[in-house]
Parts: sequence; structure tokens; C-alpha cells
Amino acid sequence: MTSAAEVMLRCSELDAFTASPTHLERTHLTPQHRAANAPVAGWMRRAGLRVWQDAAGNICGRREGAAPGLPALLLGSHLDTVPDAGSFDGMLGVVMAVAVAERLGARIDAGELAPLPFALEVIGFSDEEGARFGTALMGSRAVAGSWNDDWWDLRDREGVSLHQAFLDFGLDPRRVGDAARRPDELVGYLEAHIEQGPRLEAADHALGFVTTIAAARRFRISITGEARHAGGTPYERRRDALVGASEIVVAVERIARDAGALGTVGRIAVQPGGVNIVPGRADLSLDLRATTDAARDGAWQKILTEMRAICDARRLRLDVVDTHVAPAAPCAPWLQDAVVAGIRATDHPDPLGLWSPAGHDAMAIADITDIGMLFLRCHDGISHHPDEGVREDDVALGLDAFEHAVLAVAEAHAGARR
Amino acid sequence: MTSAAEVMLRCSELDAFTASPTHLERTHLTPQHRAANAPVAGWMRRAGLRVWQDAAGNICGRREGAAPGLPALLLGSHLDTVPDAGSFDGMLGVVMAVAVAERLGARIDAGELAPLPFALEVIGFSDEEGARFGTALMGSRAVAGSWNDDWWDLRDREGVSLHQAFLDFGLDPRRVGDAARRPDELVGYLEAHIEQGPRLEAADHALGFVTTIAAARRFRISITGEARHAGGTPYERRRDALVGASEIVVAVERIARDAGALGTVGRIAVQPGGVNIVPGRADLSLDLRATTDAARDGAWQKILTEMRAICDARRLRLDVVDTHVAPAAPCAPWLQDAVVAGIRATDHPDPLGLWSPAGHDAMAIADITDIGMLFLRCHDGISHHPDEGVREDDVALGLDAFEHAVLAVAEAHAGARR
Repeated sequence: MTSAAEVMLRCSELDAFTASPTHLERTHLTPQHRAANAPVAGWMRRAGLRVWQDAAGNICGRREGAAPGLPALLLGSHLDTVPDAGSFDGMLGVVMAVAVAERLGARIDAGELAPLPFALEVIGFSDEEGARFGTALMGSRAVAGSWNDDWWDLRDREGVSLHQAFLDFGLDPRRVGDAARRPDELVGYLEAHIEQGPRLEAADHALGFVTTIAAARRFRISITGEARHAGGTPYERRRDALVGASEIVVAVERIARDAGALGTVGRIAVQPGGVNIVPGRADLSLDLRATTDAARDGAWQKILTEMRAICDARRLRLDVVDTHVAPAAPCAPWLQDAVVAGIRATDHPDPLGLWSPAGHDAMAIADITDIGMLFLRCHDGISHHPDEGVREDDVALGLDAFEHAVLAVAEAHAGARR
Repeated sequence: MTSAAEVMLRCSELDAFTASPTHLERTHLTPQHRAANAPVAGWMRRAGLRVWQDAAGNICGRREGAAPGLPALLLGSHLDTVPDAGSFDGMLGVVMAVAVAERLGARIDAGELAPLPFALEVIGFSDEEGARFGTALMGSRAVAGSWNDDWWDLRDREGVSLHQAFLDFGLDPRRVGDAARRPDELVGYLEAHIEQGPRLEAADHALGFVTTIAAARRFRISITGEARHAGGTPYERRRDALVGASEIVVAVERIARDAGALGTVGRIAVQPGGVNIVPGRADLSLDLRATTDAARDGAWQKILTEMRAICDARRLRLDVVDTHVAPAAPCAPWLQDAVVAGIRATDHPDPLGLWSPAGHDAMAIADITDIGMLFLRCHDGISHHPDEGVREDDVALGLDAFEHAVLAVAEAHAGARR
């Protein structure tokens, strides 16, 4: 049976499939991605699953339930990484899902458990990070039937189109629709993932349940003043785009924090950029996340009002472009309950509910079925970095809780059908 | 006699000597620089001056005083420009100096004025802006004897060394020391220049006298926090280098303004620069100018204290590198008096005294002789830009005032020798 130690080992084995000898980088539809699907397929087969690679490059496995052809409870996460990644973001959820399917299968085969009232499927998504083509969640969106044909012309840094990458991988772009699943084929979706944040560690919990995946918006903000000679321009004559932008950066933190949201300015560029020239223009990115669409948009309205006041006072022009919007993806209460039941049975009598500011495959899958998520404590909240870490004893608790959660889903599902 | 209209025309004639067909760019030791020296030499000759190009590429002219070989009153400014420059920064001062030398010469030759008690020299400096090799005031530093042999290895954007540029221009690098003037050869230095700021215009004065050229310091400031996932990192765990840098940018403005100084952050760069990553590092430039070295350093100490407090509160590391320091260059009271006398005789009974936050050739020349400066009102304070402008009637007043100032110097000089 796959132990927590074996799960840790499998995660580190996947590190071998990387585009770089010095760091982990495995992006969508690369040779490394294809190569990584092979051991995952092997682990799935060993777990008693029927295995296939779908039309979008996702690696899939299925074990039938009490009868063949029942709707499936889907367990999964992703196998792609950001550049210079850690070993657990995504991969841990796939490897844990395989292990849980194996454990349950073995208990059913041993007659210890009744066959489940649904099929159990495991999926390793091909693209969640979007690191190669700039658009995230392509693997899960293919499964959710929300594929966008505009994506075919996206190109990676080498100029390879997504269309060509499909062909190179051995996939037929015309058949990508075959990866889509219908809602009536599914019971729900459960995903285990490292928290990618420090809250479980701070609270001394190994596990947590996710209440919702953040509502997100991104903006490109341009502030235009007037580039002038730093020596010749007294303060009353300056229209310094950077000082205005700086007040905005500080305001974003204050407003988002007060709203219980997260606002991040990750990029800034000023023009003309001379040491002795008052900046005439500043361009900022803003990434805003909150628990609900309304909370996110409320924080944004406050930020926008404040930005306008700052720019008016400094005689600066403000231009804002919306570059990305994602609605919140709340976890279904009944699947939250199932995850809570799993955590209660293993880690803690009073499980911690967390919102996930980071996006996950579950966001895309929420379009076609109910979602639930189990978070595992990670080291110092670090993610997307080689120092990403998870404790083996936490993984052991996580496996038990995940297994329990599937059984709780079975109970709830059976109850609902009665 | 050279009128204000002729001065305006000569400035626009110099626009033809540019590296670009679409904008004015004439940098140190370029073919355009060499070509521009020729008409200036012609105007000098027409003004009755003996003309030579010195060992640093400065174009020089001299008219003897009451006896041959007397110490000289030097009048001048520079002929090089920044990229995309206006027509007046530097050039106006050279052209006006030639015109004033011509007028005085004609009056002396006509017996209307006694010969001056000093020689009159005019100089068009080869490099003030430093736009080509990154180090400013090379022409005037050669004259001041403060040439630095480290400069020979400086290279322009094309990789041409200063040494090679000297050879290409037809100058012998080994002889650059010949351009240096001894203090006992000089009576003083007067420079006319556009204000490059809006204060004369705001006060409705055509002319002003300079009290001092700013004390300046430049710094490179690095703020190091921790790059982290924007989604996964709650505020209490962030060490956001950009938010810290933004507080610093705002503080620089407040502190410098309160101190009557000028502080400018013209550059900022953050790393890693991802839209969804909390910035781990921010690098800023700071340009600080004040009327005296003490005022400048006092403002700097306050800024440094505030930066340390900001970085401590946000658990950021602060690193500061001094990249440039220039002491204030006060104008000599007796030459301020001479310029004031010139302005009183022409523009205004109560001349406006201004400090110059911008640097000028006079800063370098202050090492070897007393300096004085006459500022002319410029349009909207604009400089280093094609929209740079000066009114012809202001130039007319400026010529009269400059001529008067030279006579006031003669009076003061004669008085001092009596």
C-alpha cells in the first residue's frame, strides 16, 4: 500500500522530469510533461485503475464503482510546474489521489468495504500554472468543456504555437473537445494541495478545508504626469508620476488589508527613467484577490476612488485596463463537510476553514461539478520555489483524511440518492 | 552689432549641427561638435577676438584689455546638448558672451569706453551635459585643471573610448593638460544661462542673479525583502520591497520639500517583477540638491533615518551606495553684485536672487576663479526638451544686463586694485 513515505518519494521522482539540470521546470506539452505522465500512469495501473491520456494531455485513471458506468468522483491536481518550482505544488495532489484510490480499491477488493456508489477517477492535469503559454488552467478547462479556440495561436518564448505543441506532443488539436466531461458523468471533484501559505502552520494544524477559491482581478494601471528636469522643477510645478504611483502602492496595501482582501503590485516601470528626471509616467500591475466577487469588487472600488483622489491632487492622468477576471469558486458545502469529516477523523477535532487566494484546477472544474479541497500545511508558506516543503507526517494525516473524505462523499451521495 | 534677434538666429543656426535629422543631439567630441565650433569661431572673429580651440576641444576667443597679457574675465557656457534637446541650454550663454564681447569691443574701439582693465575671453565648452560618456563638465574641468585620467577609459554607447574620441576629433590626449588655466590668469567667470525652471516666469522677471549652484548628491538605494506568491502570502507575512520603496519615495518628497531641498527618485526597478509575485527587491535612484552642503546633508540624514524606520518596520534590508557628490558652488558676492547691477540697469530695480538646482560649467570653473551667473527667464521652466524657449525681448534685456555686468566687474576690479 502506498505510504506517506512512498508519496514523498514519488513526488521527488517526478523532479527528474525537468527542462533544466539545475532546477525544476516542467511546462505544458513539453517532452518533460510527456515523460512525467508515464510514471503517473504506472502508479495508476498499480492502483488498479484503467489508464488513458485524454485529448488535452491530461493523464487519467478510473476504477468502476458498484456498477460499471456510474458517474465518477474525480480526484486530482496538476503535474506542470512554474520555472524553478518546488516538488509539491500540484504533484502532491495527484500522487495522493492515486494513493487514496489504491487504498480504497484494496479495502474494497478485500471485502472490508462495500463498492463505492460511484466510479473513482484520478486525473493529473497537463496545465494549471500557464507558465509556457501564459494562459493558466488549460488542462482543467479542456475537461470542463471551457476550452477557448483563441488559445491555439498562443506562442511560447520560442515562438511555438499551442497548436504546434499539441501536434509535437502527439495530440490532435481537432479532438481537444473529446477531453470535456459532462456534468452528469460526475459526482464531484476533490483536490488535495499544499496550502501555499502560512496559516495552517501558524495555527498548528496539519490540514485544513477550503471554503472558496478567491475571486481575482488584475489590472494594468498607467499614471501620466510630466517628465521634467529634476534640478529645474520645484515641487509646486512637478507632476511626478512615481510619487503618485507610490502613494497608490501604499494605498492598495491599506485598503486591501482593511477589506480582508489581498492586493499586490508586482510590477512597476517608470519613464523616462533618468536619474535626474522627474518621472513622467509610471505603469503598475495590480493583482487583487478576495473571498467573494463582491468583496473583491468592493475593495477595487475603494482603490479606484483613492487612486483618482491621488491623481487629481497631483494633476496626474490615471488610466486603468482590466486584464483578467476570475469569479470566486466556492467549495460546495456538502463537499466541505466531507473534507471536514476527513480532517476530524485524523488531524483535528476543529478543522480550520481557509479561503484560497491562489487559483487551482478546482476553479475550472467548478463549471461542471461541485468541488471540495483539502489543504496540507507547507513549510513557511513557501511555494513556487525550490524550498517548497511538506512534512511526511502531515502527508500521512492527509492520506487518511482524504480517504475518509471520499467515504464521507459516498455516504452523502448514497444519502442524497435514497 | 549683434542684436537679440541675431542671438536668437545664431542659436537656431547651431541646431543644424545634430546627430539626428529629427531632433537636436550634439554630444562631446562628435563630428557635430567639431562642426559647431566653426561658426562659433567665426562669430568670435567677427567680434574682434583672437580664436583658438583648446586641448580639450573648447572653442576660445580673447580680446586684450588695457595692456596685453592681463588676466582675463572669462565669459562662457557650453555647446553640447542632451539628446532631444532645446536650442538654448548652454548655447545661449556662448552666443550672448560673444555678442557682449563684440559690443564692448566696438564701444572701446569707438573711444566711447576706456579699454577694460582685464582681457575679455569667451569660451564655448565642449562638454557640460556628459550625455556621451556619462561624466559631465569635462570641458570646464579641463580648463579648471581638474581633469581625471580615469576618464580616458570611459566609453560611449558604441564602445568608443574617450581616448579614441579625442584622437578622432583631432586632439592629442597627452596634451589635455594644456587646456588648464591658472587662477592668476583669471579675474573671474560670468555665465548667462536660461533658468531651466519656472521661478523668474512666476515672478514676472526677465532676469535673475544666481546666489549659488546646488550642492548635489546621488545615491543608489536597494531594498530587499522576500519574493513570495501574491496569493499565498497574507499581509502579516509579507516583506514587500515595493511597498517599502513606495513609502520611501513619498518620504523623500516630504522631507526634501520641508528642507527647501529637491529630492527626486527618477528610477525604480523591482524583482522578480511577476504580476502575481510580491516584490523581493526594489532598486531606486535618489538625486538630492540643496543650497548648501550642510542643507543637503541634513536632508539626507533625515531621509536616511526615515528609510531605516520604514525598512525596520517592514523587515526589509536597506543598502545605500553614494554614487555622486558635488559641493555647492556659491557665486562670489562681488560678482553677484556685478550681475545685480546689470539687472538693475535694465530689467528690474529689485533683482531676484535664485539658487540653481541644476549644475553648470561655472561649478567646475569655481575651482580656479570667482564665478557669477545671470539667469534668463525661460518658457514654462522647460529645459532639456525641444520646447525649451526664451523670449527675444528677454534676450535683449539680458544682453544689456550682461554688458553692464562686465563693466561693473571692471569697476570693482579697478577699485580693488586701487
